[in-house]
Amino acid sequence: MKFTRFTFEDKKYTGVVHNEMIREIKGNIFTEWEYTGQNFAVDEVKFLAPLVPNQIIGIGANFVAKKEDLPDELPEIPVFFFKPTSSVIGPEDEIVIPQGCSEVKFESELAVVIGREAKDISESEVFDYVFGYTVGNDVTAPAFFHEAGHWTIGKSFDTFTPLGPVVETELNPKDVRVKAVLNGSEKQNSGMDLMIISIEKMISYLSKVMTLVPGDVILTGSPVGAEFVGEHDVIECTIEEIGTLRNKFTVPSRELQR
Amino acid sequence: MKFTRFTFEDKKYTGVVHNEMIREIKGNIFTEWEYTGQNFAVDEVKFLAPLVPNQIIGIGANFVAKKEDLPDELPEIPVFFFKPTSSVIGPEDEIVIPQGCSEVKFESELAVVIGREAKDISESEVFDYVFGYTVGNDVTAPAFFHEAGHWTIGKSFDTFTPLGPVVETELNPKDVRVKAVLNGSEKQNSGMDLMIISIEKMISYLSKVMTLVPGDVILTGSPVGAEFVGEHDVIECTIEEIGTLRNKFTVPSRELQR
Repeated sequence: MKFTRFTFEDKKYTGVVHNEMIREIKGNIFTEWEYTGQNFAVDEVKFLAPLVPNQIIGIGANFVAKKEDLPDELPEIPVFFFKPTSSVIGPEDEIVIPQGCSEVKFESELAVVIGREAKDISESEVFDYVFGYTVGNDVTAPAFFHEAGHWTIGKSFDTFTPLGPVVETELNPKDVRVKAVLNGSEKQNSGMDLMIISIEKMISYLSKVMTLVPGDVILTGSPVGAEFVGEHDVIECTIEEIGTLRNKFTVPSRELQR
Repeated sequence: MKFTRFTFEDKKYTGVVHNEMIREIKGNIFTEWEYTGQNFAVDEVKFLAPLVPNQIIGIGANFVAKKEDLPDELPEIPVFFFKPTSSVIGPEDEIVIPQGCSEVKFESELAVVIGREAKDISESEVFDYVFGYTVGNDVTAPAFFHEAGHWTIGKSFDTFTPLGPVVETELNPKDVRVKAVLNGSEKQNSGMDLMIISIEKMISYLSKVMTLVPGDVILTGSPVGAEFVGEHDVIECTIEEIGTLRNKFTVPSRELQR
């Protein structure tokens, strides 16, 4: 089932995509919802980020280029980071390159959406707590990384977390390929066998630290191939079973006033 | 005005503290609210964290021991970090030291509560966007810091962000002293003149990165004197104009099952 949010004539809706149609729903996608009976054509709406995340957690450097490069031992403490929910945008929204840097990186990723409160869960239970999956772009401005290793600012600018176009609840995350196409040219295309810390390990680990709740989004890391991009570049992040998340990079439309 | 949340006979309430009484309110403290007419005695309720934050942002190493140590030049990129909202507890709740480390640090801090959406605001405007202030304890487990400098896990455990007892809206943050008393012995006691990056600079900077919204909580850094503590220790974080945030450290009540 493909959940999404969208606007039609400036009004926001939640719906389920069936082929070329979206059936509006009301209620809470994580608990109880029902069809309203109102339908929309996919091509007459503007897709939004498919959910308003409760929080967003990313993981650093989680893919290798080829299987032989997979480490024998996993890191004891994975590199996790938070991205603010204010950084979320939807498909076709513009990614704004902040003042103070001329280029940023795209990072196409499989994003896991938590559906049930999860605390101290084992790896084997993880998928019982997953609601579904979307595509995420973990846009990053390394120019704003702190020299002592803190990534917070470089990951946190408004528009830096495109999500969408849908949350797909019927997906085997092991089977997907995570792709990115920059200005029509493929830059990322990887199976999940090149992931270092598995989704099960990552979410089980996080759940032993913090209580995960419905609406938490976990970005599972980006394959090798992310590049620096600038104004006018267009990035398409694709997981075929979910869809394509397309965004254009731009610069602020005016000088900052201060 | 001192806003708080509390429980009485297992039911949750929001209220305003007037001396030894709490007057219940209903509505949204950031927009519109009104008194319900129901009152409670302060000593018959259990205080909760005074708000459910939208997100929590902390700043690293933001105090010096004496004025002569203040740096001539401010860092270009301050060390900011996020703490998950799942880490919030209230006064008198227990702070759980995670398995895998025997001690953690307390860090008494002035916490700023944002009251209006803030984007690209100048330093001179910052206090127009502040709703009020509470006391925060930025509990930290350095054993879980990643060797490459990422603090996320070490800051994110459940119970690691005590807040309270009230949000005080009438306060000059320049005038307060941030204190911590460990098992009856004073460990932190600092004026705000020893702060490196001012509240105005910190919030203006953040607002140029991300859109801050009502309910965002910014922990402004902890004075010199934070120490490692262990099971049974009791920490009291105090800002006299706001109150005392008292919590006891404990260890998990059972072995983790897995």
